[in-house]
Amino acid sequence: MSVAVDAMGADRGPAVVIEGAVQAAKEENIEVILIGREEAVLPQLEKLGNAGGLVTFQKATQVVEMGESPSDALRRKKDSSIRVAFEMVKQGRADAVVSAGNSGATLATAMVVLGRIKGIRPAIATWMPTLKDPVVMIDVGANVDCKPRHLFQFAIMGSVFWRSITGKDTPRIGLLSIGEEDTKGNLQVKKAYDLLESSSLNFLGNVEGRDVFNGDVDVIVCDGFVGNICLKLSEGLAESVMAMLKSEIESSLLATMGYTLARSAFKRFKKKVDYAEYGGAPLLGIDGVGIICHGRSGSKAIKNAVKMADALIQAQLPQQLAGAFFSEPATAVGGMC
Amino acid sequence: MSVAVDAMGADRGPAVVIEGAVQAAKEENIEVILIGREEAVLPQLEKLGNAGGLVTFQKATQVVEMGESPSDALRRKKDSSIRVAFEMVKQGRADAVVSAGNSGATLATAMVVLGRIKGIRPAIATWMPTLKDPVVMIDVGANVDCKPRHLFQFAIMGSVFWRSITGKDTPRIGLLSIGEEDTKGNLQVKKAYDLLESSSLNFLGNVEGRDVFNGDVDVIVCDGFVGNICLKLSEGLAESVMAMLKSEIESSLLATMGYTLARSAFKRFKKKVDYAEYGGAPLLGIDGVGIICHGRSGSKAIKNAVKMADALIQAQLPQQLAGAFFSEPATAVGGMC
Repeated sequence: MSVAVDAMGADRGPAVVIEGAVQAAKEENIEVILIGREEAVLPQLEKLGNAGGLVTFQKATQVVEMGESPSDALRRKKDSSIRVAFEMVKQGRADAVVSAGNSGATLATAMVVLGRIKGIRPAIATWMPTLKDPVVMIDVGANVDCKPRHLFQFAIMGSVFWRSITGKDTPRIGLLSIGEEDTKGNLQVKKAYDLLESSSLNFLGNVEGRDVFNGDVDVIVCDGFVGNICLKLSEGLAESVMAMLKSEIESSLLATMGYTLARSAFKRFKKKVDYAEYGGAPLLGIDGVGIICHGRSGSKAIKNAVKMADALIQAQLPQQLAGAFFSEPATAVGGMC
Repeated sequence: MSVAVDAMGADRGPAVVIEGAVQAAKEENIEVILIGREEAVLPQLEKLGNAGGLVTFQKATQVVEMGESPSDALRRKKDSSIRVAFEMVKQGRADAVVSAGNSGATLATAMVVLGRIKGIRPAIATWMPTLKDPVVMIDVGANVDCKPRHLFQFAIMGSVFWRSITGKDTPRIGLLSIGEEDTKGNLQVKKAYDLLESSSLNFLGNVEGRDVFNGDVDVIVCDGFVGNICLKLSEGLAESVMAMLKSEIESSLLATMGYTLARSAFKRFKKKVDYAEYGGAPLLGIDGVGIICHGRSGSKAIKNAVKMADALIQAQLPQQLAGAFFSEPATAVGGMC
């Protein structure tokens, strides 16, 4: 089993990606294939060592830039690092892809090269920190216009992902809305509520924005427009809260002394809310394993994403997903709603 | 000019509402009419004094409970404190309503009793703290299923509100979406983008979730489903961040000592992000002034909401709103899009 890592296209350049990939290989004995331009990858790999032969190299001559349109990338860059990575999975030469490059292009390439589970809309899941255990939020950006049945599909996929990572059963599902009662929400959410309630999932009902971080559900379902806004709002707010607090603290000598004493607590807090701890966001519903990393990922995020990819291969995620859809009524999964 | 304050129905009971209303009357010489049950209001008013005659009482025998459906409340409780408050504005005996009661019922009663500006969907605006000046977010809950033209209407109303409070001109408008480019977003947002771009508003384009708190726009436009989730997510996250930080700090003696020294900085920070500082959320687009307060409001939030109501009466908000819609092309404001 091996993980194909797109070494190109990340905001902070190939060096941090390669460093994270090599670390994951060393720490967990994971076979990693670094994909990219020779001149960008090989010198760095030589410097860090190949982890006793676990890390190998596959050439790709093109790079998809961050601002590039996914359809342009698919049409014009047949030898991009993203494309070559997914082709390797298709050909059975790798089992998963990790990329911190253009996420739209990663998504589109995964769909075109690997294909998706029949009748299913692939979606991006992510972990969010809470006061208790982290929660899975799905979809956080793959689908901006959804039908109720797609939200239902996301709930199934989020559950399978949660089980794969935690090793536990029957996650508690919440539907993101604007009130707890089943009468609250927009038309899309109210219909999705009915589908979820009549399913075999452990559906707890609606959750409001303020409940996202209290940890009382395990999987939060929403469309990709709402989910992406929530994810980025959370990142922005956590950063802003720290910046506001820092500026208040720096305005007083006494508070600055206090901060110095409390610094380790701040560090532990930052670790708890740092997306790098969670690695990346899996694209669920494709016929394979693909992890989309934050463009700004450092080596720790890449390392954790490679570990997540390895865990999902071992949990046979694509097979588990396909199986889960067979056990739910076809009317809901692929129906007209 | 006077502000009708619904003394009943808030989570923390009439006492805090009455206290906040009396404080606003004293501090800013605002005439306030407290509306509610005699036995709930009069003893408290006697205790606090009527601010030199500025605070008067109007009886209402019924109370809308928090969980009650707005349509039931409208049908069955013709003498509720919320209803009586809006009737007083209708009859010219008051100029604005402030309520911390059932917000759905407040919204519905305002629409039924006062009516709305023709062709316009009323929306709820709110202030959000940012790293720079606070930003107006609209809609945060009145409309869960919106057309693009409604988002455009929200932009106009948010601008008028921002001008009324800040006294400044031409606010910078941002449309909440999932990428900066005009091609990013769901169908609703992409069409709203076109309407905003061809208007006379100072439209800066899309803003992402992470930009909400950086203060680079003055008004953020979104539908009420997305806005309500963002608002509650922000409240929940700010509370969770503080709770997580506190638990990290309490786990170490050194950090606890540090926190003691930095406590004033924490307090200033809390003040900055405390919704009570902003008072309440105005309902824009009705034929009058109505402020919806958080159910959990304390006396400070009520006081600030009464002050906001007074400022909006003085700025002639309903007239300004009606005027603003006349100056934009009818196709966009009331068109089919």
